Amino acid sequence: MAPDHSLSYTVTFGDCDPAGIVFYPNIYGWFDRTFHDWLAQFGGHAAVCARLGAVGLGLMQADAKFRRPMRPNDRITVAMVLRDWGRKALTIDYTVSLGDAVTATGTEVRGLFQQTGTGMTAGEMRALQELLASHEQD
Amino acid sequence: MAPDHSLSYTVTFGDCDPAGIVFYPNIYGWFDRTFHDWLAQFGGHAAVCARLGAVGLGLMQADAKFRRPMRPNDRITVAMVLRDWGRKALTIDYTVSLGDAVTATGTEVRGLFQQTGTGMTAGEMRALQELLASHEQD
Amino acid sequence: MAPDHSLSYTVTFGDCDPAGIVFYPNIYGWFDRTFHDWLAQFGGHAAVCARLGAVGLGLMQADAKFRRPMRPNDRITVAMVLRDWGRKALTIDYTVSLGDAVTATGTEVRGLFQQTGTGMTAGEMRALQELLASHEQD
Amino acid sequence: MAPDHSLSYTVTFGDCDPAGIVFYPNIYGWFDRTFHDWLAQFGGHAAVCARLGAVGLGLMQADAKFRRPMRPNDRITVAMVLRDWGRKALTIDYTVSLGDAVTATGTEVRGLFQQTGTGMTAGEMRALQELLASHEQD
Repeated sequence: MAPDHSLSYTVTFGDCDPAGIVFYPNIYGWFDRTFHDWLAQFGGHAAVCARLGAVGLGLMQADAKFRRPMRPNDRITVAMVLRDWGRKALTIDYTVSLGDAVTATGTEVRGLFQQTGTGMTAGEMRALQELLASHEQD
Repeated sequence: MAPDHSLSYTVTFGDCDPAGIVFYPNIYGWFDRTFHDWLAQFGGHAAVCARLGAVGLGLMQADAKFRRPMRPNDRITVAMVLRDWGRKALTIDYTVSLGDAVTATGTEVRGLFQQTGTGMTAGEMRALQELLASHEQD
Repeated sequence: MAPDHSLSYTVTFGDCDPAGIVFYPNIYGWFDRTFHDWLAQFGGHAAVCARLGAVGLGLMQADAKFRRPMRPNDRITVAMVLRDWGRKALTIDYTVSLGDAVTATGTEVRGLFQQTGTGMTAGEMRALQELLASHEQD
Repeated sequence: MAPDHSLSYTVTFGDCDPAGIVFYPNIYGWFDRTFHDWLAQFGGHAAVCARLGAVGLGLMQADAKFRRPMRPNDRITVAMVLRDWGRKALTIDYTVSLGDAVTATGTEVRGLFQQTGTGMTAGEMRALQELLASHEQD
């Protein structure tokens, strides 16, 4: 499936741990970076949330499989596919590659968090889809 | 189930993102912190790996569910259960709590990575179990 | 000089880089952590800023000297001294220790950033001093 | 002065804190990233250290001035100048820019750390200079 968005990133020394390979939470950070880079074309997270009355397009769950170690100066690509628009959750797949090799894959499930009087609630994803669609018509 | 290990941690400003809540990759960082804090009683990661001829007790996969947002100055607890010792994989469950509320749960699957002539391979977990058992007899 | 605040912190594996020692930007992160931990007794950064009409108690400059390497599982102490209250800048000294040894020292200069129509400006520090003093009288 | 090296970087959401601007330790992380990106042309940190019998090209001190806030999706440039080769210390200047505006400046002082029987010592920088010069002749 053609990715909805992708970016390139150079692994840096500070991304890596005493074993000399990428510290794994940073790989989720690259998923998040790719998501926000995609969102930038629609004005970015702050602007999108302001228009939707949301505090964040936040995480409900995430998982990843780590297939090959990555090291300083590796030039990786992160590709993102918007796999499933649920009523209150967007499921996004990520694939991290180094040359021809897949180094990691993973999934984020994001909600549209809205503040209510008593706490945080997950809003309707349709509002986000409509906002994106209106951009594509521009 | 009684945790095999747990630690307390104070969420800091720098752990949080522009939405004012914890940036989610940091939660995996707390899983990893708890694992290494547990491992410290056996000499720590470097010493354990040296004894086992391994380069790292690294990640094969990880997942998490984010149940409630965490904010600066929240005093959280991370509890860890060694759920399953597979032949070449150790599965560990984590529960993050704030007072009585569970804020996140997750799982890490770790392997014992060993360098071979042609790359990295996952070694037998039994070697780690035996090392831990020998400590407990001390 | 007796510190105005201090905290203990356990260096974790993920704080360290492929050289096996703490990745140096994290040491500034511990300065910041100590500052925010101190501020927590006055309600924390968000509450203090809300009362002062500020967007942040942000950094104007910072420096550090790294005297000894720190490693995973080191139990360090970070001590903080509010050294100088300038009209528009607060200068804070930090000392990081491991047992009897000083491992790092540093300084932050912070301003009270306020949003104006045309950008960000540094407000009068007196407002923060008065807020802190009113707490101490409680 | 023409920079000895520079790189471009896109500020991401996760680099920023609850005030909505870059969490300042990350700016030092970009200095370090630029240094390692420069070092990559000589084989990278691990290879260079192996050839010099060093454990790291580590930090002795660092400072920075933060001139303008940076935000998610800002496309910044970090320029680096090798300002001074001391006998046992290399001083490096950094300038971070966003378009025409300088957002941060800073300095790192790095040593060539070598393990001795009793601890860590700073080796002669000449060895690094000669290694770099031999590359330039290639």
